[in-house]
Amino acid sequence: MKKFINDPNNLTTELLQGLALAYPQKVKIVSDKIVVRANPKSKDKVAVITLGGSGHEPALSGYVGEGMLDASVVGDIFAAPGAPKILDALRMFKEHSGIMLMILNHAGDVMNGDMAFNMAVKEGINVKKILTAEDIAPGIDAPIEDRRGLGGCIPLAKVAGAAAEAGKSLDEVLEIAERFNQSMATIAVTMKTATHPQSGQYISTLPDDMMEIGMGQHGEGGGTGPQKIATADETAEVMVKKLVNAVKAKSGDKVELIVNGSGATTLMEMLVVFRKAHQVLAGMGITVASARCEEILTVQEAAGFQMFLAKLDDELLGYLNAPSDTPYWVTR
Amino acid sequence: MKKFINDPNNLTTELLQGLALAYPQKVKIVSDKIVVRANPKSKDKVAVITLGGSGHEPALSGYVGEGMLDASVVGDIFAAPGAPKILDALRMFKEHSGIMLMILNHAGDVMNGDMAFNMAVKEGINVKKILTAEDIAPGIDAPIEDRRGLGGCIPLAKVAGAAAEAGKSLDEVLEIAERFNQSMATIAVTMKTATHPQSGQYISTLPDDMMEIGMGQHGEGGGTGPQKIATADETAEVMVKKLVNAVKAKSGDKVELIVNGSGATTLMEMLVVFRKAHQVLAGMGITVASARCEEILTVQEAAGFQMFLAKLDDELLGYLNAPSDTPYWVTR
Repeated sequence: MKKFINDPNNLTTELLQGLALAYPQKVKIVSDKIVVRANPKSKDKVAVITLGGSGHEPALSGYVGEGMLDASVVGDIFAAPGAPKILDALRMFKEHSGIMLMILNHAGDVMNGDMAFNMAVKEGINVKKILTAEDIAPGIDAPIEDRRGLGGCIPLAKVAGAAAEAGKSLDEVLEIAERFNQSMATIAVTMKTATHPQSGQYISTLPDDMMEIGMGQHGEGGGTGPQKIATADETAEVMVKKLVNAVKAKSGDKVELIVNGSGATTLMEMLVVFRKAHQVLAGMGITVASARCEEILTVQEAAGFQMFLAKLDDELLGYLNAPSDTPYWVTR
Repeated sequence: MKKFINDPNNLTTELLQGLALAYPQKVKIVSDKIVVRANPKSKDKVAVITLGGSGHEPALSGYVGEGMLDASVVGDIFAAPGAPKILDALRMFKEHSGIMLMILNHAGDVMNGDMAFNMAVKEGINVKKILTAEDIAPGIDAPIEDRRGLGGCIPLAKVAGAAAEAGKSLDEVLEIAERFNQSMATIAVTMKTATHPQSGQYISTLPDDMMEIGMGQHGEGGGTGPQKIATADETAEVMVKKLVNAVKAKSGDKVELIVNGSGATTLMEMLVVFRKAHQVLAGMGITVASARCEEILTVQEAAGFQMFLAKLDDELLGYLNAPSDTPYWVTR
């Protein structure tokens, strides 16, 4: 394992310190491993809070800032933060007009997030939660328990954060975020899985000439099984068609398309893949109205990418285009 | 070589198509492999133009847009574009109030850039050129011929682009860009060199437990020789001290600090490195007034990073903070 680190036990603390030092106008760390805005606005607005393990940078803490997240509660590498820490964060925002707690569908996140949520509700904190589980690898009709929360949490935070910034009530922010949640889907492809930066262990391995569509974001199985590496165009076409089917997009629809690199896959490759996915959508009469092609949620040095598609109405598109100012997502 | 590509001979064309499809409000391709702004402003302003091989995404074409580059002339993977293509781009902007042509110090770029520059001058085009060569690996007193142009071209494009946007004359833009150029330095460290995506060949190799400070951006030699992998903190401290020495920063000075990932090195690691470099600077009384920690100029799946430092006056800082709207550098 060739990595620039110090004591593996301090990794999360040190990377968060780096984030706060690099973007001090945008974020700061409070209460060890809770990342909040450096210059919070008034408490009148709904706060959007999320939680998750580190090791996926820039997700999730790189999206704290104006127009997106109010706070990110950070766990250790690939590990959920504990419920008490999440509850601490919810208490910090209890004077806001409400809190939306976004939880990605991974066992540890759900267990700790739900526990903190229930304790906060008992304390009278005005919090509602939303679960992202947009991975379509187990099939588009799979029960939500079987679906993982992948990179879709990031554009969802953009939509919810913009709605909160616009002064929407908690119920309204929830309704808007849930509408986006129900219209989004992600599928991943992996060529090489990640090593755990603290243990140096590979999560799984793929033979040199193989790839797998549908792997989880840490390289867990659940996909279509290993297959020979296909061309960028073949891979993009298979994936985007699965997504179109999942979100039921049709001619005349507007969509957001994101190609999110896992870590080792170059932007060069991602742009080639994006191009083909865009061409396939155009051929179906579907308009890409919002796009990103970059690393938004990574998994160490895993090679591969996630492709994300969401069907948009004009209100959702407006929130995607609204101003934001976070370390890794700036919209003018 | 595990990569998502199609025919290697079409790689550059396809990745540029992807860029234009992902960011159609910002960039478009004209005349095969010349990337220009989608919505150019008036011809009254100075145009800032650069050139270079592809395979380094998001550099250089990802920085075309308002407040940065007007055009990027793109060569094949790791190869300079030909002089006739560069001349085409210069002719496209001949009605602007002037053109600043930025050339990175690599043999092919300099040869073709100079040839096009001389032809343009003969045609009466009002163009001036600037050469970036801020690599301090050969020593801070090394002659300019021995210094490579590394990632410093990107913040330089930000400064020059903002000055041009502010309506400065060609002589003024040149003076401002040259002032930044003279106050910047970069040093690279490599753990694993890149493969050429068209040939699959490694450019050079480093044993598993070794790294090298001072390698060129394609993994060429010129550094301090292979050494055992050091911790993130040790590596950061050695590098930032070399840079402080090179730019002659002292207590009370303001600087820009950039940690630029080469490709495979994770943002997690880069943030840890940034943190230490920032701490070392703070200990010297030097203020980081502008920062980025991300991949701005990559080299395929090379593992390592470039550390960049520039001493700033208030005018240069103002241009770094000025609004910009390019695919991969947005400032509000």
